[in-house]
Amino acid sequence: MKAYKDLSKEELLTLQEQLNKDYEDAKSKGLKLDMSRGKPAASQLDMEMDFLNVLNADSILKTEAGVDCRNYGVMDGIPEARKLIGDVIGVPAENVIIFGNASLNIMYDTVARSEIFGVMGETPWCRLDKVKFLCPVPGYDRHFAITEQFGIEMINVPMTEDGPDMDMVEALVNTDPAVKGIWCVPKYSNPQGYTYSDETVKRFAALKPAAKDFRIYWDNAYAIHDLYEDKKDTLLDILSECEKAGNPDMVYEFCSTSKVMFPGSGIAALASSKANLDFIKKYMTIQTIGYDKINQLRHVRYFKDAEGMKAHMMKHAAIMRPKFEAVLHVLESELNGLEIGSWTEPKGGYFISFDALEGCAKKIVEKCKEAGVVLTGAGATYPYKKDPKDSNIRLAPSFPTPEELAMATDLFVLCVKLVSVEKLLKEA
Amino acid sequence: MKAYKDLSKEELLTLQEQLNKDYEDAKSKGLKLDMSRGKPAASQLDMEMDFLNVLNADSILKTEAGVDCRNYGVMDGIPEARKLIGDVIGVPAENVIIFGNASLNIMYDTVARSEIFGVMGETPWCRLDKVKFLCPVPGYDRHFAITEQFGIEMINVPMTEDGPDMDMVEALVNTDPAVKGIWCVPKYSNPQGYTYSDETVKRFAALKPAAKDFRIYWDNAYAIHDLYEDKKDTLLDILSECEKAGNPDMVYEFCSTSKVMFPGSGIAALASSKANLDFIKKYMTIQTIGYDKINQLRHVRYFKDAEGMKAHMMKHAAIMRPKFEAVLHVLESELNGLEIGSWTEPKGGYFISFDALEGCAKKIVEKCKEAGVVLTGAGATYPYKKDPKDSNIRLAPSFPTPEELAMATDLFVLCVKLVSVEKLLKEA
Repeated sequence: MKAYKDLSKEELLTLQEQLNKDYEDAKSKGLKLDMSRGKPAASQLDMEMDFLNVLNADSILKTEAGVDCRNYGVMDGIPEARKLIGDVIGVPAENVIIFGNASLNIMYDTVARSEIFGVMGETPWCRLDKVKFLCPVPGYDRHFAITEQFGIEMINVPMTEDGPDMDMVEALVNTDPAVKGIWCVPKYSNPQGYTYSDETVKRFAALKPAAKDFRIYWDNAYAIHDLYEDKKDTLLDILSECEKAGNPDMVYEFCSTSKVMFPGSGIAALASSKANLDFIKKYMTIQTIGYDKINQLRHVRYFKDAEGMKAHMMKHAAIMRPKFEAVLHVLESELNGLEIGSWTEPKGGYFISFDALEGCAKKIVEKCKEAGVVLTGAGATYPYKKDPKDSNIRLAPSFPTPEELAMATDLFVLCVKLVSVEKLLKEA
Repeated sequence: MKAYKDLSKEELLTLQEQLNKDYEDAKSKGLKLDMSRGKPAASQLDMEMDFLNVLNADSILKTEAGVDCRNYGVMDGIPEARKLIGDVIGVPAENVIIFGNASLNIMYDTVARSEIFGVMGETPWCRLDKVKFLCPVPGYDRHFAITEQFGIEMINVPMTEDGPDMDMVEALVNTDPAVKGIWCVPKYSNPQGYTYSDETVKRFAALKPAAKDFRIYWDNAYAIHDLYEDKKDTLLDILSECEKAGNPDMVYEFCSTSKVMFPGSGIAALASSKANLDFIKKYMTIQTIGYDKINQLRHVRYFKDAEGMKAHMMKHAAIMRPKFEAVLHVLESELNGLEIGSWTEPKGGYFISFDALEGCAKKIVEKCKEAGVVLTGAGATYPYKKDPKDSNIRLAPSFPTPEELAMATDLFVLCVKLVSVEKLLKEA
């Protein structure tokens, strides 16, 4: 395949004509496909329906310690659920609090609490002139939406295959007391699927923040969301690394079972140092009496232990793998050598990240939409929805069937080609 | 029975001796009873275990409109759950949002949001010098704890059998722009069990608040928590009354199924005007993707409709009624005519309110605790835990068995007598 940039104007015009024809054909198919969000597919949910049989009218709904899960109480979660989640992310149960159904909610409330009440005795952020968060980019739109809503200034930090650019992170965190946090998806990052290297984690742990109330917002959303049994990324445990480095209170780690069990009906958790958890509990005890312990128990009885949950994830992987492969296959066979885009090949998580030629992402997403394929909005992977290069597009292969995905990706590559040719012609 | 105040010093001393002996006997029994919190009893939870059979691996987990409740989405709750809760409290489904497992959490977040972002365009409360809430007293300790945590000044408003002293409410709300809210438990109030009269509700609806962002925090916690099928209190619908009075946006109404179904595993709701809900959703959509729709569906399938839920509540009533009656029987037979205390006789809710002689509540609660009966802390029914008369005690009859309750109340009245005699002797 010849790179598009090496084509003559005439070649490009001929190509454009053909691509336009193909596009009109594609539009006439009346596709209605969605690659926009990281939603599990119906087939994933179908295979875990027995989750609903775990508890029934004959169950004894008591914890091992004898607490009745049907009644009020146990604000921080039943001990066996704290242990289950702790084992999954590799931290002791006593460092885990189980919340409601969504880690997003915990993150939002953590920022809200810091705004109103401050962090462990420091000035509440709402009384500061300026609060800043570092945002590795491309990143997760819902993280950026939280900090945007609170008026927190977001600073882009480029991602590499090993994690965020740590030189930049250190330079900013260690000198600017207005920097209060950084959003991280450390394993199978959203959207690139990169996993932070051991060195990156250690450099995080060794930060010397200018702000006492700086915290790493460690959204371990894809801790066990591997695609391959034999090719799993591994992530160092940030909590123990921070402790070793003399920064025991520097991390909030978030996770949930939203993509382990039914999304929306899972359990979510915060893991952190005892000092952080004790501080948070002082506020939490006014906000709630406790979360859904029956659902916590349902999780414990269904998965039994961390190994059980990991085994379950391999059933998800069996469904997800062919989808990732379907998308990657089309990208490779259609775009390799054309030099009009690059993409990641994650070994887990929910996304593939695609970088188009500069200035093309918005147009590609629009063209896809016009022909019936919905993608995540271009720009969504950047704070303020502003991708400075208008280049990054997040592909979410989980929800459609492999057949639908092949069709959707066919259209996607067609639109990539079309928009790239238009750009090259304009510049020619 | 002769009133204690009419006894001679000698009679009081003789009585005290006998009571002290009785108290030592009681202590030696080694009681371990809890009348402190409004927790349903195990027998209530046992009778609703079939709730866990409603959904199983063979269920179709779709809403009537075809939405898959197992997946992400539907932030404001599935339509059938909104209708169910709306019908129960008498408001249209479109005025209802279903949240997570606890109305307390909704109330907390509503105050937090007002602090940070303000209410519909008004100045965020955190930027104001002074924010005040009216607190009908005695009232619910967890309400007061929220406003205390946010540093909101709480102003006591005396309760009457018809609701809060509305002259005082009107005088404060209609003149002081710092007054942003009032905490109300309008039906079977906590702890007195009083239900606001129609006139009270209409006077609420007709308020002319000095603050545009004044809201009534209408915690309809006991909307269908009647003890008697044939003697139910009725409560006017505040939302429609406010609308009629030209104050459509003045109320947030909260409720939950925490004392309908398993506490902690229920669903909670906010009902309000479209304008209020639209404003709140702008923030909510950043905080969460949605709550547990499977549990919403479980509620809908189990109760079917509001009538089904009300019928279910009569099963709770059958268990609760003998407990209230056991407590009231002991209070009446032991304290009538002694003029050392008065109490309420609620037709629903979870509490009985007891008023001891001034300055006696703390000592009574202490004495009970010393002999193995835990009551709600004296003062808890007042903001800042300060009962100016040290007189009010909240009795929660739901959790113990009727036999335990009879024992606990026997001890309670003994302590009331003992502490009252001590007081009278001191004053003699």
